Amino acid sequence: MNKKRVGEPCLARWAENIKRSALQEMLKEASKPGIISFALGLPAPELFPAAEYSKAFEKILTADANALQYGPPSLRLKEHIVKLMNRRGIQCAAEQVFLTAGAQQGTSLLARLLLNPGGRVVTEELTYTGFLQVLQPFEPQILTVPTELVDGMDVEAVGSHLSEGNRPALIYCMTDGHNPLGVSMSLKKRKRLLEIIRQYGTPVIEDDAYGFLQYDQDLLPPLRSSEDHLVFYIGSFSKIIGPTLRAGWIVLPESLIPALSVVKEAADIDTTTLSQQAIAAYIDSGRLDDHILKLRSEYVLRRDAMLTQLEKHFPEGARWNRPSSGVFIWVELPDHIDADKLLGAAIEAGVAFIPGSAFNIGDQSRAKSSLRLNFSNSSQDKIEEGIKRLARVIGKFMALR
Amino acid sequence: MNKKRVGEPCLARWAENIKRSALQEMLKEASKPGIISFALGLPAPELFPAAEYSKAFEKILTADANALQYGPPSLRLKEHIVKLMNRRGIQCAAEQVFLTAGAQQGTSLLARLLLNPGGRVVTEELTYTGFLQVLQPFEPQILTVPTELVDGMDVEAVGSHLSEGNRPALIYCMTDGHNPLGVSMSLKKRKRLLEIIRQYGTPVIEDDAYGFLQYDQDLLPPLRSSEDHLVFYIGSFSKIIGPTLRAGWIVLPESLIPALSVVKEAADIDTTTLSQQAIAAYIDSGRLDDHILKLRSEYVLRRDAMLTQLEKHFPEGARWNRPSSGVFIWVELPDHIDADKLLGAAIEAGVAFIPGSAFNIGDQSRAKSSLRLNFSNSSQDKIEEGIKRLARVIGKFMALR
Repeated sequence: MNKKRVGEPCLARWAENIKRSALQEMLKEASKPGIISFALGLPAPELFPAAEYSKAFEKILTADANALQYGPPSLRLKEHIVKLMNRRGIQCAAEQVFLTAGAQQGTSLLARLLLNPGGRVVTEELTYTGFLQVLQPFEPQILTVPTELVDGMDVEAVGSHLSEGNRPALIYCMTDGHNPLGVSMSLKKRKRLLEIIRQYGTPVIEDDAYGFLQYDQDLLPPLRSSEDHLVFYIGSFSKIIGPTLRAGWIVLPESLIPALSVVKEAADIDTTTLSQQAIAAYIDSGRLDDHILKLRSEYVLRRDAMLTQLEKHFPEGARWNRPSSGVFIWVELPDHIDADKLLGAAIEAGVAFIPGSAFNIGDQSRAKSSLRLNFSNSSQDKIEEGIKRLARVIGKFMALR
Repeated sequence: MNKKRVGEPCLARWAENIKRSALQEMLKEASKPGIISFALGLPAPELFPAAEYSKAFEKILTADANALQYGPPSLRLKEHIVKLMNRRGIQCAAEQVFLTAGAQQGTSLLARLLLNPGGRVVTEELTYTGFLQVLQPFEPQILTVPTELVDGMDVEAVGSHLSEGNRPALIYCMTDGHNPLGVSMSLKKRKRLLEIIRQYGTPVIEDDAYGFLQYDQDLLPPLRSSEDHLVFYIGSFSKIIGPTLRAGWIVLPESLIPALSVVKEAADIDTTTLSQQAIAAYIDSGRLDDHILKLRSEYVLRRDAMLTQLEKHFPEGARWNRPSSGVFIWVELPDHIDADKLLGAAIEAGVAFIPGSAFNIGDQSRAKSSLRLNFSNSSQDKIEEGIKRLARVIGKFMALR
């Protein structure tokens, strides 16, 4: 698309440089039948409560003459979110809840609210690609910090950036279910990060899209549970109910809701209020808690199946973590293996993943031999077969050294 | 929200200046029971095919295990849009159709694709407020042109801006069903505008959100029917099927779809594919044509009812147009009447409208005595009663001179 034909318009400066990466082309291949894909962060569709939603839509479309009309965000859903947040350790009021079309829209709107073109942002070197896409049009100065696989973001590095005089418009972090690393930030680091942002008055976007998918124990409290002025919390129903309903939320200071509403109105008018009402009706029915438990108990089996297969088949020198939340396992292979090249061979062998380089904006050395593996979207059988296939390909790459 | 409390974050420069206007506060009042509102551009909910959608959702949620999963934009819906476009005089392929969450999102995405921060844009002095909201974060240089109530945008004024050396990133126009003016651009002006944009290679966003609501005759061909490189056409199902489904589209050069996809992915992931499938299923059933005819025949009665009442009750010196498409009538009252002040009194008398100043970014003199009246959202009885109420209030303002 970078070849311009005569008569074609000029694009915005940043957009002229957009290229579809080789990765995206390869991932198209990965969606072909017969390929076991650990690539995307998809939930398991067989666990979605589709029949319940069918009933909810019917009820709403029959009962409410304005069901298809423009309408305000569902207050009932906001009230349900307040209760959900409460179980996540967050105290908030319905007036602090802002409904969005999902976590990605939440991030995008907050960036527009907080960031000037060319402004500064702190992110991890390995971070969610969707956030990097949000940043692109701002052409910002990105200050990066490393992340430990054991306890998360290097918060002292955040402190160093700030103490050097940088005043970023925002810090982006995923305290739990980190994408791509699967790590949760330790309590000690959470406390220290709060101290740092309070000292400098720097806002944080806390992206908790996977925050209800916890496996081994209750998750630690999100940053938002201790700080309601500077922490903008992002939640989503995509991973717990169904992505196509396009429903997420932001918890933010009530005083900023009017400004955020203007940002939102420019991006799109309303959000699927029909979906919001259907989700509210589903939560009314009292089934959400059991549903989340069902997701967790199935996903933990899948996670453990993947860990077992990794242990069994992956070569010495490979390292991975055991995520207590989210849907990803991060695998670091021996340094001489190039994960980008590995992907091509893996797809030929019928298995897909995302190479670490896709998430990387810092030093390449760590990411280039790493893989992000999703465990939520494949059955245990497929996980077993897929990891075997992948191990065979890696075996060949090891031998090529 | 402009009072900042200690510990609250800095917003982006443009966002610090966001204020909810007095108008928005007043419009809250206008939605109270008992008030006949001609304010918003709402379709008539009693005409929505709600039962058909209930069935469509049930069918999809039962038949397709991935109905709630992330998914690609519906190809079937794109193919239907190609046929719809054809009846609107536009030849395009499914590969040139990009699905959005509605016309507003279409405009927002295109602005991000085409416009640099601080860039130049051509708009009419009286234009759609949602487009002005899209522009705000770019802090652009806005070049305005007047619009004639008889035949639309002053395209020679567009030519003058360009011949003076301005190279705007885009021109925004509504060729039919203009919001707020209700006017359609004459064929002569369409042709001249095409000449001008081709001479300078300037892209146009042609916002056709009301393009299927035509009353007296077939509409003239959109700009996009004669120019497929420089014209970005925006369509929407909000006004013909139901806004809450959040489905619209852009027709643009296929070569730009990959870049626009990146812009879209940053804004939100996917669009309600469930809605897309439901709309496609509804169109499959063959009922859309009759449904649009039903809308037109009802809306033309409402338009004519409003025109009759205006003729009967509005004072000498008031002027208005007879829109051949869209959902708005624009009324210009005698100069000494301030429409902003009139609104307060009108709401007290039980009727609401939007004062012209809300749409105005040029010379205030024309807009300040004007009203935008919506006729699609009120029954003929309500229109009769509402215009009588409004005329009484205007009568008092006339007497106060």
